[in-house]
Amino acid sequence: MEEQELAKIEHTGKQRVVIVGGGFGGLELAKSLRNVDVQVVLVDKQNYHTFQPLMYQVATAGLEAADIVSPFRKILEGQDNLSFRMAEVVCVNTETQVVETSIGLIPYDFLVVATGATTNYFGDEQMARHAIAIKSVEDAVALRNTVLSNFEKALQIGDDEQLNSLLDFVIVGGGPTGVEVAGALSELRKHVFPKDYREIDFRQMDIHLIQSGDVLLKGMSAEASQKALEYLQKFGVNVMLERRVKSYDGYTVTLNTGEKLITRTLIWAAGVAGAPIDGIRPESLRKGGRYEVNAHNQVAGYSNIFAVGDIAAMLSPEYPEGHPMVAQPAIQQGRLLASNLERLIRKQPLQPFHYDDKGAMATIGRNHAVADVKLLGKEWKTQGFFAWVMWALVHVIALVEFRNRLTVFANWMWNYFSQNTGLRYIMGGRREPIPTPKASEPAS
Amino acid sequence: MEEQELAKIEHTGKQRVVIVGGGFGGLELAKSLRNVDVQVVLVDKQNYHTFQPLMYQVATAGLEAADIVSPFRKILEGQDNLSFRMAEVVCVNTETQVVETSIGLIPYDFLVVATGATTNYFGDEQMARHAIAIKSVEDAVALRNTVLSNFEKALQIGDDEQLNSLLDFVIVGGGPTGVEVAGALSELRKHVFPKDYREIDFRQMDIHLIQSGDVLLKGMSAEASQKALEYLQKFGVNVMLERRVKSYDGYTVTLNTGEKLITRTLIWAAGVAGAPIDGIRPESLRKGGRYEVNAHNQVAGYSNIFAVGDIAAMLSPEYPEGHPMVAQPAIQQGRLLASNLERLIRKQPLQPFHYDDKGAMATIGRNHAVADVKLLGKEWKTQGFFAWVMWALVHVIALVEFRNRLTVFANWMWNYFSQNTGLRYIMGGRREPIPTPKASEPAS
Repeated sequence: MEEQELAKIEHTGKQRVVIVGGGFGGLELAKSLRNVDVQVVLVDKQNYHTFQPLMYQVATAGLEAADIVSPFRKILEGQDNLSFRMAEVVCVNTETQVVETSIGLIPYDFLVVATGATTNYFGDEQMARHAIAIKSVEDAVALRNTVLSNFEKALQIGDDEQLNSLLDFVIVGGGPTGVEVAGALSELRKHVFPKDYREIDFRQMDIHLIQSGDVLLKGMSAEASQKALEYLQKFGVNVMLERRVKSYDGYTVTLNTGEKLITRTLIWAAGVAGAPIDGIRPESLRKGGRYEVNAHNQVAGYSNIFAVGDIAAMLSPEYPEGHPMVAQPAIQQGRLLASNLERLIRKQPLQPFHYDDKGAMATIGRNHAVADVKLLGKEWKTQGFFAWVMWALVHVIALVEFRNRLTVFANWMWNYFSQNTGLRYIMGGRREPIPTPKASEPAS
Repeated sequence: MEEQELAKIEHTGKQRVVIVGGGFGGLELAKSLRNVDVQVVLVDKQNYHTFQPLMYQVATAGLEAADIVSPFRKILEGQDNLSFRMAEVVCVNTETQVVETSIGLIPYDFLVVATGATTNYFGDEQMARHAIAIKSVEDAVALRNTVLSNFEKALQIGDDEQLNSLLDFVIVGGGPTGVEVAGALSELRKHVFPKDYREIDFRQMDIHLIQSGDVLLKGMSAEASQKALEYLQKFGVNVMLERRVKSYDGYTVTLNTGEKLITRTLIWAAGVAGAPIDGIRPESLRKGGRYEVNAHNQVAGYSNIFAVGDIAAMLSPEYPEGHPMVAQPAIQQGRLLASNLERLIRKQPLQPFHYDDKGAMATIGRNHAVADVKLLGKEWKTQGFFAWVMWALVHVIALVEFRNRLTVFANWMWNYFSQNTGLRYIMGGRREPIPTPKASEPAS
């Protein structure tokens, strides 16, 4: 580490806040520091922010990748106290207060870890090798390519089991992502795929959703869970509750009940874990790879290292495991941390974080969503068309850039009325040729 | 070849026309055969048609890849006599009348080669290794990623020569693609990049356009060539006429005059050659890899093998080298060949091809284009704003799908008025990390 050179970032003489990760928490913090008398350095391995809640729509051909990403340099245009650097973080030296990155060393006065979460396969290496996760836009594009390539391959198959291995999909995890992907696939099966592949009998295409617990959308209201189940069943999704996947070899899924499913496409939406950084004391890490933070988002054991969002576990009687790993806690923590950093510099006392829970929503398909909204101290539960319109509005408004709001809205209107999304090309990501699969040979 | 199985395509009992390649010629032919009493099999290695004339805008962050591609299955929806297959063609056996592909053997009664053209480096392997061409959408995305990554890297550079190697661009070839890329880069340099990279002095960014002949846009009118040169010079592009590139090692460009330029990004727009298929007699190939065809697009030496578009060289007194390798001859040949195939089946005499030349256009930048339009037997030459509006209209209208027309139009309006395209993310294609380049070491 001693040999590496400093990254070239002008030293402004201000105290320097280095933010690692430009997800919801890191980006909100960076923006909120606009008028604070510090130098902000935002580091991300991508040059764009991703609006994760709509990633599943990229995976299911409803939106284009460009619709849900925004370049950091554009979002933060004109913020004079900020430098963005596209770089991978290698580790941190908390003694010398330096972040080691692919572009060199970046010294800090305050370090904010906003690295988010990554897919958690709970140590199952075979699963990690064969399953598809949707954690980045590129993952989402790869899943879309896989789905479409499967059908191109299926055209060449005579054998029934082989055919089903390509047409059937298994989704593991009954949280919002699993439910939304299952719903979106069922809509494509109904409206889009049969037009494209007249030679395939889509009654043979099965969509299985496997959930370990006894309800979907755990954490939402009983009404939401129940309606989500009903909607999925109405759309022809085979929801299998209280099942776990024991193993998957790229072809056969074995459940803990002994049941077997055949598929070449298993979508893993069953768990995420924090993405910690080397060099921060591992004693601060809790189960699930999240840093334990106090009410000021300070990482346990440090006074100048903070964590916000998915990577932070702020324990409280109400949230004994930390806040849910979704956008709102990250955004709210990022915003508060900006003002706390200002207070720290002015040697004022810090303010504790209070989570303003606005509720949760999930969409299952056209005109069908479930929502538990917390508003004015009351909880409103609604399901169906109204929830769906609300879901769509909230997500369009929440998009970071005006341009994206326009394109997402336009795309949705188009898809809604034409029932014929145009985004059915196989490009980038997984680009294997379309060979004839050999009989009873796993896809690995 | 004997061992391979047949691709699974239902045999309808009709005579089968196999079209290899879904560019302008192949697609137009496929669509025009809609009501002809044959079975049509369209084979392409992609599942989408690409609108090539706007590909340079994808490379220069003006349009999204999705805006200029259309899935074949969507374009050809409801055409009952057609099957599309995504497959790579290996070779043809003209004796047994079978095309060997990655999905198996496809027998034909009539074969149409519409494989288009590919980049021609004229045998210079070093150039092929280091230069960037724009022949596919994925190439275009890779070029965009390279341009943006260069600037991210440039932020870390102190050394002046190193800095210029990243900021400077050399474009080889003064045809429409070269001119359009040079113009688009100069606009980004003026309006977009300085906002994103405040730490870079963009007066250091040079754009060199190298043309072997003494005019740009050879083949267009003298007025168009002259104005294109003036516009580019006004936009600050260094146009170097009557120069050839002798060598390029990934860092230093050496010209035939002995002049040297330093760049890590050389864009090759200097030549294309036909993309022939193995198994068709090589005696039918002419210089530039194009099949010699008669006025009915029959490949010399065959009665049931045809070629249309860039891959076909139809020699005539007016076009001694064949037609220009652009969209219009391909489309018109595809359309005529459909009616000639119908005539062939009905044992009627075939009709000869007559090229209806509608002229040529090229855009240099915002409000600046040149056009030579042939209309009602007259040639109209115009340059500047009116040509630019006409260029935009013609290209929007020519797009294959209504949806693309909308998105391209909307994108252009947005870019025109905001002067701030949003498509500045680095995704897919070239995804190397951003390291600190070592002093005076070529990028290879």
